[in-house]
Amino acid sequence: TVEHEAGLAARAWAWVLACVAAAWGKVDAFARKVWKIGADDPRKVVHGLKVGLSLALVSVFYYTRPLYDGVGGAAMWAIMTVVVVFEYTVGGGVYKSFNRAVATASAGVLALGVHWVASKSGEFEPYILTGSLFLLAAAATFSRFIPTVKARFDYGVTIFILTYSLVAVSGYRVDQLATLAQQRVSTIAIGIFMCLAVSAFICPVWAGQELHLLTTRNMDKLASSLEACVEDYFAQATTATTTKSTKSDGYKCVLNSKASEDAQANLARWEPAHGRFGFRHPYGQYCKIGAAMRACAYCVEALSTCAGAEAQAPEHVKGLLRGACARVAARCARVLREASRSVGAMKTFGRALDFAVAEMNTAVHELQGDMRSLPPYMLAVKMAEEASLMDAMAVFTVASLLVEVSARVEGVV
Amino acid sequence: TVEHEAGLAARAWAWVLACVAAAWGKVDAFARKVWKIGADDPRKVVHGLKVGLSLALVSVFYYTRPLYDGVGGAAMWAIMTVVVVFEYTVGGGVYKSFNRAVATASAGVLALGVHWVASKSGEFEPYILTGSLFLLAAAATFSRFIPTVKARFDYGVTIFILTYSLVAVSGYRVDQLATLAQQRVSTIAIGIFMCLAVSAFICPVWAGQELHLLTTRNMDKLASSLEACVEDYFAQATTATTTKSTKSDGYKCVLNSKASEDAQANLARWEPAHGRFGFRHPYGQYCKIGAAMRACAYCVEALSTCAGAEAQAPEHVKGLLRGACARVAARCARVLREASRSVGAMKTFGRALDFAVAEMNTAVHELQGDMRSLPPYMLAVKMAEEASLMDAMAVFTVASLLVEVSARVEGVV
Repeated sequence: TVEHEAGLAARAWAWVLACVAAAWGKVDAFARKVWKIGADDPRKVVHGLKVGLSLALVSVFYYTRPLYDGVGGAAMWAIMTVVVVFEYTVGGGVYKSFNRAVATASAGVLALGVHWVASKSGEFEPYILTGSLFLLAAAATFSRFIPTVKARFDYGVTIFILTYSLVAVSGYRVDQLATLAQQRVSTIAIGIFMCLAVSAFICPVWAGQELHLLTTRNMDKLASSLEACVEDYFAQATTATTTKSTKSDGYKCVLNSKASEDAQANLARWEPAHGRFGFRHPYGQYCKIGAAMRACAYCVEALSTCAGAEAQAPEHVKGLLRGACARVAARCARVLREASRSVGAMKTFGRALDFAVAEMNTAVHELQGDMRSLPPYMLAVKMAEEASLMDAMAVFTVASLLVEVSARVEGVV
Repeated sequence: TVEHEAGLAARAWAWVLACVAAAWGKVDAFARKVWKIGADDPRKVVHGLKVGLSLALVSVFYYTRPLYDGVGGAAMWAIMTVVVVFEYTVGGGVYKSFNRAVATASAGVLALGVHWVASKSGEFEPYILTGSLFLLAAAATFSRFIPTVKARFDYGVTIFILTYSLVAVSGYRVDQLATLAQQRVSTIAIGIFMCLAVSAFICPVWAGQELHLLTTRNMDKLASSLEACVEDYFAQATTATTTKSTKSDGYKCVLNSKASEDAQANLARWEPAHGRFGFRHPYGQYCKIGAAMRACAYCVEALSTCAGAEAQAPEHVKGLLRGACARVAARCARVLREASRSVGAMKTFGRALDFAVAEMNTAVHELQGDMRSLPPYMLAVKMAEEASLMDAMAVFTVASLLVEVSARVEGVV
């Protein structure tokens, strides 16, 4: 039985080892993933360090200056402000700071007023306080469903309810409300100041710039995926390979970019002037460009479906239109790149862009002519070429829209 | 000059009146808008009342039971919890409650441990505390960029940093940390309990149900907008009206539904079993259906561009394909409606759906046949019909996907 036990122990040991190895493998894979996130965008790591830094600053501030005594009072509010207000982009930080400051101040004043009225009314005091709390909280919560409020003051409404209820409830017990309010405002101000200083002066991440980069990057992606799709379509016919080039998937990023664009444009409105971005930079234009690009991406999507379809046209038919199609795609892509360059530099290269658009139109007309002159027996296999024409037409409308938009961008910057 | 002054006063008075009238007009328009939001979805008003109710409950709880004394301590945390945790859907509330509870507890324990170590180390205490705060805050903030953490524990990480820093900093001064922690945990528990009770028992809004309704509603919209687009295309040719039916815009809701679907699916995972939704209801399937519907909507978008295009085919050409196209569109729409019904009832009407799909395929084949037999001189004007064929093919793949999905939904429910 000693051998048996030894065998058991060995097996148990082996099992433990296997478990540890498996766990280690998982941890290792996870660590790799995390490392990759950090390596891809070091600003994310920097952001983490910035949050740590501003927290440490605030806490040092309170260690070295024992101005206030007790826990609940002062230091807490500064720390809470830093944790809650610090955002990845400067615009996000300003948005939250502004909302927090204004909401705290207005709710505090309102609560003090109601409290004063309630204290005059004698025995009804708790009823008045609780009733007003109920009504205000209900109204404020409902107001969050109004789109404008939702987009700009969502956080402020939360803070408004919070401050009002804290003051209203605490007011029942404490009489030094004014001192309390003054303390709280000063600590929140310190927290906000720390946050904004750290986020704006140490490797700032501007929402406006992010939006700008996102837009130009998406435009370039769209251009190369348009080219790649048409290429794929014709390449497949000649070499019969099934591997799609990865480039042609670029349009997928464009398809679902609406949410992040809207969010960034919203935050960017809060940012002060920085670099080449003025105070009233027309961030709304980016959203319009984004919508136009999405319309374009839908067409590219339809086109790439054709490229991936099973039923393909015979090669000699494709050969007839290959040149014209490739030309249209290349020129569409060029218009997009030109527009991206013009948005990127925040200037209108009016002539270059106009020239590119004109060339694209010529190519489209050529393609249309080619299609009309095709012999009739190729009727049933024309789908893809016509899809590409459709696409080209959509790109054309988008491009002319872009010309306008970039002109406007120049007008305002 | 008296007359002159009188004239001035009258003008000033008129100006004031005009201003008031203009302001009143704006307020009135705004009030109408707000009223419409409430009237369209009374649950939003109910949600506001619920928040007010639970806040009032908590404050009454603290008025009637003067268990704790002082401001900063107890009541504050319960109120703060209610304000911050209460969300529109039950899933959102559970998500935040869980995150808040777990994060507070774990951060509290960790902070107490670090605090104990620091207090043993004598004069290095502030350095250890501030250093650990810096490191933990940086690491936790960075972890929010990891997609899994972002989706499920974003709020928890914030609370973790907050609690840790509060305990670490306050710990420098107060020695009754254990009592404080116990108080705080009990108040947070009371707040969470109030929230969940009110949000789950009074007119609950389930994220899962919302998602379910959104999916079926989108499917129906897609079906009717597909029909309407094809109708528009042919109607325009015969009557030459430029008014598009509003129905055909239904696909636009589908195009940008990704963000809200993902968010709701994320929240729905936190919900307990309710009604016909089990605990591990396959919410991921809804996202897949949503993606398939979006792919479908892209095609409808291309189709509706054709319907709105200036260059239209001559009427006699359209007449040749009108019947076949309308049949395809009608049957596609029927497949979508059938799928929507089957998802809505959470059952597979396998036979009805299969039948509808088979009918659609027949219609597609007929259309293909019609197109092949068309005389050759109509070559250049075929675009729209072929787009509709493409669309039908995409719908077909989506429909077969839906058959599978609804089968799986049944399998799991």
